[in-house]
Amino acid sequence: MNAPQSPMDLALALAEEAAANGEAPIGAVVVENGKILAAERNRMQALGDPTAHAEMLAIRKALEVRGTGRLDGCDLYVTLEPCAMCAGAIAHVRLRRLYYGADDPKAGAVDNGVHLFAQPTCHHAPEVIAGVGERRSRSLLKDFFAGLR
Amino acid sequence: MNAPQSPMDLALALAEEAAANGEAPIGAVVVENGKILAAERNRMQALGDPTAHAEMLAIRKALEVRGTGRLDGCDLYVTLEPCAMCAGAIAHVRLRRLYYGADDPKAGAVDNGVHLFAQPTCHHAPEVIAGVGERRSRSLLKDFFAGLR
Repeated sequence: MNAPQSPMDLALALAEEAAANGEAPIGAVVVENGKILAAERNRMQALGDPTAHAEMLAIRKALEVRGTGRLDGCDLYVTLEPCAMCAGAIAHVRLRRLYYGADDPKAGAVDNGVHLFAQPTCHHAPEVIAGVGERRSRSLLKDFFAGLR
Repeated sequence: MNAPQSPMDLALALAEEAAANGEAPIGAVVVENGKILAAERNRMQALGDPTAHAEMLAIRKALEVRGTGRLDGCDLYVTLEPCAMCAGAIAHVRLRRLYYGADDPKAGAVDNGVHLFAQPTCHHAPEVIAGVGERRSRSLLKDFFAGLR
């Protein structure tokens, strides 16, 4: 019998599924009081849409499921530090907490780049917990991009 | 006989339509070589989705119509300065030019806030032309928010 999967384990499994489908390995899960509202992965190639990041898809799905027009009180688990687009979306929907795996010095916008949530113009900043599942996330990303070369 | 409508006139008409439907008045149009690929407006209330900004909807629609997975060579006309989420999306899809109407000192991320396109971590920056249709855009926004008070 397997132990129940943590939200980050599920996000990592989705990242792995993304890689198996030729997508950059990133997964995202939205949780409310221990209940999973949405679990999505990167679908940029499949949808021909460079905005189809795991976080954006998970946020839209969770909004649909919840039906309140907001995700306050909900937490997002994502395997890679969100970019500016996704960080902006996180602020718009008022997510309570952001757990992320690997940091992204090139495109990250939370603890790198524009540090969006630390800006005075940012109208909502979630609590941020970095480094959850970092090692496995980084290894999936490294293998994927090595395979592309 | 009316003169042909410019893309920004169309975006402003969509902003007006948004206001008439109880949405913040913002419209966005994607154009390629004079051809309109997408014309959308804010639908946050209707969709119960705070990420349903006019720009995001227009970008996704234009990607769908074009089918190339990018919007390089295309231009976006939007009545208000984009936020960080939308500016991030603009960079991801590699839009050529961004024309916007009113600036947004509170939530704008192009010439205000994080100045996303000026950051060293920004992988693509469109040419930016600000102030197109500014007066009408600002007047629509002012009337809408005055009506909410």
